[in-house]
Amino acid sequence: MKKKRTTIKDIANVLNISPAAVSKALHNDSRISEKTKTAVKRVAKELNYQPNHLASALRKGKSNLVGVIVPRTSSNFFSSVIQNIEEVLNKEGYNIIITQSNESFQKECNNIDTLLFTQVDGIIASMANETVDLSYYEKIKSKGIPLILFDRGENDLNVDYIGINDYDSSFMIVEHLISKGCKRIAHIGGFRHTRIFNNRIRGYIDAIHAHNLPHDDDLLIESSLTLENGKQKMQELLALENPPDAVYIAGDYAALGALQLLKEKNIRVPNDICLVGFGNEPFTSLVTPTITSINQHSAQIGQLAAKTFLERVKMETVKQTLNKIILDAELIERDSSQKK
Amino acid sequence: MKKKRTTIKDIANVLNISPAAVSKALHNDSRISEKTKTAVKRVAKELNYQPNHLASALRKGKSNLVGVIVPRTSSNFFSSVIQNIEEVLNKEGYNIIITQSNESFQKECNNIDTLLFTQVDGIIASMANETVDLSYYEKIKSKGIPLILFDRGENDLNVDYIGINDYDSSFMIVEHLISKGCKRIAHIGGFRHTRIFNNRIRGYIDAIHAHNLPHDDDLLIESSLTLENGKQKMQELLALENPPDAVYIAGDYAALGALQLLKEKNIRVPNDICLVGFGNEPFTSLVTPTITSINQHSAQIGQLAAKTFLERVKMETVKQTLNKIILDAELIERDSSQKK
Repeated sequence: MKKKRTTIKDIANVLNISPAAVSKALHNDSRISEKTKTAVKRVAKELNYQPNHLASALRKGKSNLVGVIVPRTSSNFFSSVIQNIEEVLNKEGYNIIITQSNESFQKECNNIDTLLFTQVDGIIASMANETVDLSYYEKIKSKGIPLILFDRGENDLNVDYIGINDYDSSFMIVEHLISKGCKRIAHIGGFRHTRIFNNRIRGYIDAIHAHNLPHDDDLLIESSLTLENGKQKMQELLALENPPDAVYIAGDYAALGALQLLKEKNIRVPNDICLVGFGNEPFTSLVTPTITSINQHSAQIGQLAAKTFLERVKMETVKQTLNKIILDAELIERDSSQKK
Repeated sequence: MKKKRTTIKDIANVLNISPAAVSKALHNDSRISEKTKTAVKRVAKELNYQPNHLASALRKGKSNLVGVIVPRTSSNFFSSVIQNIEEVLNKEGYNIIITQSNESFQKECNNIDTLLFTQVDGIIASMANETVDLSYYEKIKSKGIPLILFDRGENDLNVDYIGINDYDSSFMIVEHLISKGCKRIAHIGGFRHTRIFNNRIRGYIDAIHAHNLPHDDDLLIESSLTLENGKQKMQELLALENPPDAVYIAGDYAALGALQLLKEKNIRVPNDICLVGFGNEPFTSLVTPTITSINQHSAQIGQLAAKTFLERVKMETVKQTLNKIILDAELIERDSSQKK
């Protein structure tokens, strides 16, 4: 048995007729003789031909598939968003397929090509850290396929977006640390070119200014926010002549790295340095001390993204008001910021 | 602008010619007049027609896509396997699309249909807890599409399989607990109908017998191995007239649930009860006490699964020796089993 899938062309070759005639015979077209139909069906069976449902979907212009692109599936935030997208869409007869960018722009481009290739009816995406060039996302739009962005979205694209209020969340964290008596608050942030991280940086700076705390450039550091990078950036902060008494880190994995470093150096959290993360990953409530963090409402974001997609496919034209849903985040206070 | 994708049929309708003629015109077929070609291309542009790469792939019988099915992407074991499959396949020009079953048989069937629908060149899968009926997997085989199973595979299917030696791992865990002085060792296992969990149960029973420990039916419990179920089953063990002095749990999430319950009840781990998990999820090294567990070599499993797929597509026929790769697992000793 040959491994390659049998195509209409293979059947056509055996019978020395055209592929179009084979297709017509398989669909019982009246223009094809009974004799030919019988022959086509016999050969189709012999070659283990499987009718191509996708081809039929292509004719109808609908696949009932929705593609999801995330930086990584291993993060609890993204896997919870996916879970909730899936629950809403499954009920409406859609299946989802997931791709991950691993924060790479090139991989994200490949993911978009892959999803377009599989004829998805829509794409729900959160962008890679590296992504600055938006032409691949423009490609989705130009094909008239609904595109919904969440968390890491880019307003310039002018598409539906669901996320939390990153600026306010940042402001709230800084005020929480001030209320605990912290006076030199550092921020290990994400890359400024990503709007959510830029908003967190702006919230941090404005809160520092609003409370007349010293504004020190050394205390604001950009990071890829991986665990390893969090460790490294924490090390840089400790090496300062005048180190901080609190660190707010824009991602929980990087916060975990920072905590590990502080423990290795026998620096007490929260008494020597207070620590706050972002994302409310499950491990924040498991480590010692537990880490104060921001709940990003992943379940609600996933549900809203799916519902926005469903609204889009029901509408006949793309000329419509965009959904831009910004949720208020919630501060989860834990031990790492409860300075006594 | 209408939202539906423009098809060759739409162009054909506008010009009142056959879809086949449109297709030929778009491919510059010499049988079509220059006048018609110009008209077709003009209408294609007006309707924003995008050539369908998938259709071309279908003609060639190849999509360069590999589908991956996992119970859930949120588990570190599965996301690490996926990561490694992806790294190996990306280098060879394949993209992967991921689907999750959430341990549901029905959802797994939908996933298989979805992947077949997107014309994947191969499927790499780990089965849902619920899956007993293998007919959907048989469907993949019958279509001649390479199917590689890992971790939760079913030997009856007669396909390539990569996993660890679950029987030996179990035996090793029980001997480790015996070496720490434990005498009443319980096992919260997975469902017996899943081969890997059945092998873990067999390893546990044989090790208990080999060391002449009391064999007590109450000490062996089947579980869905979620965090919540681990908590519940631990509660059942504590309620026994003669509770265990050690518990080996066939999954880390359930072990975490058991640990949480023991801490709530002020039962000291490891001094009152020793605890061992399975899977080496990252949180096992973060909680207090850290949890002894089994490293399942997720990176190696992912790489081997991808390489097995690549070997399969290079071969011309399906008649060949199957790969059955069983890796030796590694016991990672942590605080939860270091009884003093």
